[in-house]
Amino acid sequence: MMTSASIPRETAVIGLGSMGFGMAASLVRAGFAVRGCDLRPDIVASARAAGIDAGTDAAVAARGADTVVTVVVNAAQTDTVLFDNGVVGAIKPEGVIVSCATMSPGDAKRLASKAAASGIDYLDAPISGGTTRAAEGALTVLTSGPAAVFAKARPVLAAMSETLYHLGNEIGTAAAFKIVNQLLAGVHIAAACEALAFAKKLNLDLAKVHEVISRSAGSSWMFQNRGAHVVEGDYAPRSAVEIFVKDLGIVEDIARAERFPAPLAGTALQLFLMTASAGMGRDDDASVARLYAKIAGLELPGGTAEP
Amino acid sequence: MMTSASIPRETAVIGLGSMGFGMAASLVRAGFAVRGCDLRPDIVASARAAGIDAGTDAAVAARGADTVVTVVVNAAQTDTVLFDNGVVGAIKPEGVIVSCATMSPGDAKRLASKAAASGIDYLDAPISGGTTRAAEGALTVLTSGPAAVFAKARPVLAAMSETLYHLGNEIGTAAAFKIVNQLLAGVHIAAACEALAFAKKLNLDLAKVHEVISRSAGSSWMFQNRGAHVVEGDYAPRSAVEIFVKDLGIVEDIARAERFPAPLAGTALQLFLMTASAGMGRDDDASVARLYAKIAGLELPGGTAEP
Repeated sequence: MMTSASIPRETAVIGLGSMGFGMAASLVRAGFAVRGCDLRPDIVASARAAGIDAGTDAAVAARGADTVVTVVVNAAQTDTVLFDNGVVGAIKPEGVIVSCATMSPGDAKRLASKAAASGIDYLDAPISGGTTRAAEGALTVLTSGPAAVFAKARPVLAAMSETLYHLGNEIGTAAAFKIVNQLLAGVHIAAACEALAFAKKLNLDLAKVHEVISRSAGSSWMFQNRGAHVVEGDYAPRSAVEIFVKDLGIVEDIARAERFPAPLAGTALQLFLMTASAGMGRDDDASVARLYAKIAGLELPGGTAEP
Repeated sequence: MMTSASIPRETAVIGLGSMGFGMAASLVRAGFAVRGCDLRPDIVASARAAGIDAGTDAAVAARGADTVVTVVVNAAQTDTVLFDNGVVGAIKPEGVIVSCATMSPGDAKRLASKAAASGIDYLDAPISGGTTRAAEGALTVLTSGPAAVFAKARPVLAAMSETLYHLGNEIGTAAAFKIVNQLLAGVHIAAACEALAFAKKLNLDLAKVHEVISRSAGSSWMFQNRGAHVVEGDYAPRSAVEIFVKDLGIVEDIARAERFPAPLAGTALQLFLMTASAGMGRDDDASVARLYAKIAGLELPGGTAEP
């Protein structure tokens, strides 16, 4: 058993959006010394109000940290905070960067190599589970990278997750698992919206459709979760349409580069793009149902208010 | 409480394919007097070997029955067995037809009207759950039709199902629920196959992908169920590609008639058609994964043996 002195306690969380905020709060609860950073002053103010030592300077947050968790939007932002905003120069020399943004395996490898050139360890660590589970410290975290690096980051990962995988020693493997998951998640959200709008067109009771199909072979995690948003007419963003424009965009970029046809992912991406194009990009991703309603002149729960 | 004498015991099952066979066996176990019928002599022989009083004449099976359960492929076959092969003339005058084939709400209404013209009650009763659950008497049965008709058929329905819904008094409502379920089920099977083939292209361990994503937000009932067939390389038909060519065909027929766009269902239908076109129509519906493998030159579990 490790003594408490050997556990790395100094942790920085870069990116305090809905996921990063919940992860930082989980780390505070678990007894870590947490500093946070976000470029948006309103987000920083919320974090401070919740007792997190937060600011807008990534290097200040990372100064002397054992572990820096980056929870930003994509590979480009991760690159910027690590190498342009000074995280790599501020973290302890034996520290670990835990990189949580969804990105291509190639981007994960490139960022790990850049970190290695500065002598800093990097763990490929995409997350899944949404805002509620982030707040509960109950995420699924997929990791890959050298076993010794995983071991160093493990206490921090354990405090944020209910399910923690180490999927291999190669950077990029976890990123690839996450991308395959996002292909399915994106298609399933769009399919849930297509099916519920179709059910409305057939004059069915949507709450009953959601109840019955959630217990049938047509069910999916997303049908149960996002279908509830459609039934309740609640499009406040838990996860926004733009997230799947981004993630299915990564799927399609990889698929095109690999000469792999992915017609369902491609169709789902077009549906998210249409929904964003219709002005709903920042709304909940279940808004794809409102795109169908708009096209077909249907009245879904929550009324016909234009977004 | 009903006395045992008041329970309708004489039951015929028309169509003894994998679903009908399991349902007939469940009814025998529950103490019903069951006669079965199938046009295929080998299927009749199997049913007899299992102790079911079976033959190839639908009218003989239906003679004097309280309940006739039709478990054939589609509306056209249901129409043929009921009205051309003499079931409507053979069933008891106060008997009930329980119609289980997946069909459009319009076809369900048409068949119920034809039965009513002969004074026979008809229940719209599509089923879900697959061969294993049929054999266990553990199907999900979705029904709609007049409450009195549902009440008459209830003992037979209860013996075949774990979950039994009466979704309304109108014929066609249950058919519509089933069609919405099939839209999702078909898209989810094709998406599972697209995702697993993509994972193979990315050199991931498919068994691990199946395990991890089954516990993540990308999961679906079909990803768990059919994904296992891909991981095991087992394409022996539990449900064949042709079933989803048919069911997504019904979805698209309705959607086109209603002027409702269903791009994901349409894309999934094309994938099942490509798989059938490549010679795998009678194989397990997870064979869509082998279509991707064939196109992209991938070796999935089970080897590259041509179907």
